[in-house]
Amino acid sequence: MTTPDARAGGPIAPGATIGVVGGGQLGRMIALAAARLGFDVHVYATEPDAPAARVAAAATVGAFDDLARLKRFAEPCAVITHELEHLPVDALMALHASTPVRPTPRAVAIAQDRLEEKRFAAACGAATATFATIDAANDAETALAAVGAPAIFKTRRFGYDGKGQALVRSAADIHEAWAAHGRAPAIVEGVVRFHREVSVIGARGVDGAFAAYDLAENRHEEGILRESRAPAPDSAALQDDAVGFTRRMMDRLDYVGVMAVEFFDAPGGLLVNEIAPRVHNSGHWTDGGAWCDQFEQHVRAIAGWPLGDPARRGGEVVMTNLLGESVNAATELLRDPRLRLNHYGKRAATPGRKTGHITRVS
Amino acid sequence: MTTPDARAGGPIAPGATIGVVGGGQLGRMIALAAARLGFDVHVYATEPDAPAARVAAAATVGAFDDLARLKRFAEPCAVITHELEHLPVDALMALHASTPVRPTPRAVAIAQDRLEEKRFAAACGAATATFATIDAANDAETALAAVGAPAIFKTRRFGYDGKGQALVRSAADIHEAWAAHGRAPAIVEGVVRFHREVSVIGARGVDGAFAAYDLAENRHEEGILRESRAPAPDSAALQDDAVGFTRRMMDRLDYVGVMAVEFFDAPGGLLVNEIAPRVHNSGHWTDGGAWCDQFEQHVRAIAGWPLGDPARRGGEVVMTNLLGESVNAATELLRDPRLRLNHYGKRAATPGRKTGHITRVS
Repeated sequence: MTTPDARAGGPIAPGATIGVVGGGQLGRMIALAAARLGFDVHVYATEPDAPAARVAAAATVGAFDDLARLKRFAEPCAVITHELEHLPVDALMALHASTPVRPTPRAVAIAQDRLEEKRFAAACGAATATFATIDAANDAETALAAVGAPAIFKTRRFGYDGKGQALVRSAADIHEAWAAHGRAPAIVEGVVRFHREVSVIGARGVDGAFAAYDLAENRHEEGILRESRAPAPDSAALQDDAVGFTRRMMDRLDYVGVMAVEFFDAPGGLLVNEIAPRVHNSGHWTDGGAWCDQFEQHVRAIAGWPLGDPARRGGEVVMTNLLGESVNAATELLRDPRLRLNHYGKRAATPGRKTGHITRVS
Repeated sequence: MTTPDARAGGPIAPGATIGVVGGGQLGRMIALAAARLGFDVHVYATEPDAPAARVAAAATVGAFDDLARLKRFAEPCAVITHELEHLPVDALMALHASTPVRPTPRAVAIAQDRLEEKRFAAACGAATATFATIDAANDAETALAAVGAPAIFKTRRFGYDGKGQALVRSAADIHEAWAAHGRAPAIVEGVVRFHREVSVIGARGVDGAFAAYDLAENRHEEGILRESRAPAPDSAALQDDAVGFTRRMMDRLDYVGVMAVEFFDAPGGLLVNEIAPRVHNSGHWTDGGAWCDQFEQHVRAIAGWPLGDPARRGGEVVMTNLLGESVNAATELLRDPRLRLNHYGKRAATPGRKTGHITRVS
């Protein structure tokens, strides 16, 4: 049951149950952090035997839009969090009516829609790539004229790891991409001449307390994050801007928990690329690399506890994702005795899917 | 099932199941470390809802001498470890016949018997307090003459946290203590004029690789460990001796896993006080205080993986045990943002029982 304290914004006592919607690696790492702080974790996953469920005190299997089942799942929970981008916001809102859902479902709604995301970033004073909307076939010419060619076509919803995107050079290209993506609402985005992507992990408590980690520089391959490096080299001048935008966005949402913001580091300054209303792959370096890692920080925040220290421990930290079967060669990697391994315990090591990561602190 | 690799001493693959006999906080912290490395954990506990069971993929409830149930528990396990002092050695031996039990049941047998423990330490070249055995009433005079008065009466078996002990000043005191403890085999031990207790955590791999942590200085109150400090102040001259004894003991046992050895720091040198064939409270400082904490180190060792780096990260580390209800004031303690909390998730915060610990690295 929800404790009166939690409903009133007070701290949740150890021993209480934290609900986690989503059974993947992010949920698993949240659950491990929550257990160390004395919480029980109840995972809601679409499949039995999910990575997070195997480290949780209880698990419910159900669809993310099965509201009756979600409500039963929520009953023992003092607070509910989530680990996936594409959850039905309606369901989260319905849960939120009786048990605090942190971060707020509104942040999830914004992050699910590239248009809303860009508008929200702009409202918080952050720049983004130029963009135009595609809601009808005859938007193509106007849009391309507005952003210039070449441009990136992106569906507004359900994009991740480069999916739902296409490079377009003409109105015809846009027509084709739009048709290929089911004529769903989309945007075209001007190509940004950025020399790298950087990201920041912010955390905000129930009381509005705020903490931010050092900027990380992220390197992608084929749309998938391969490596994060913190602090991002030569980023001292960017840190304040990035953290300032992040804090303004979190304050405006009365956000509780950890949030990641990805930026393009462009000649004119930082441009917001994406907001992730959850713990995030680009913050995995904090486990082992910072005094309080993003998972513990997230749990402290949603539990109404004081935030931990986001400062780095030691020098540069490099986090490398392991994809597919490569995670099972980790035993060899660990011959370097300071390497820190997180293996996600996925049953199937699908090629190209994230299956673990290693962190090295120098 | 046991993999051929594990039986042959080779590494156990991530995704395999590690069995943990015992459901307390040590099992819980082993399980959390094992999960991060990609293992599933199967806990065997005497009660449902045990702290370790709530972070494990599977749990079996049964008595520690229920061999049939233990064998069923062992079936899916590639390796089995344990977290309690007073497990029936026969049962561990029976499991070991089909699935590797690490650390070896023989180490458990030695640690359960103060006489065996002292003889074993001596055989490995380590000094102990002088002692004599009490197997019959008329041993009292001889024993007291041998060790001098005052002395400490200790039952050979089932002692922990100061239990099963009495200060004796005369043969009559010994008679009384022996009768009070059911005339079970006992020893009397000369009182050691030591100025502190120090302990070391050693780790030994399947291949004989060895790693040791810095000596910790331990402070007890009413027989219960309250605080460990690492490195033990002014211990540079003791480190090699302590580690040398520990390594000799582990080598002689072909030990696999983490072992703790407690020493009295006495004017004539170190005296072995106790051997703990498992992760140990006096090594909790390593979580947050060392590159690879004792729990991960233990899992790496029993899995046949390379050992991690036991070096400290940063300066002095102080670990303080939380007893009884005090653990639930942890939210307040965490206003110090660098404090690291381990809350054991015990359902009942029995007064005087360990319910969590905090670590501070300076």
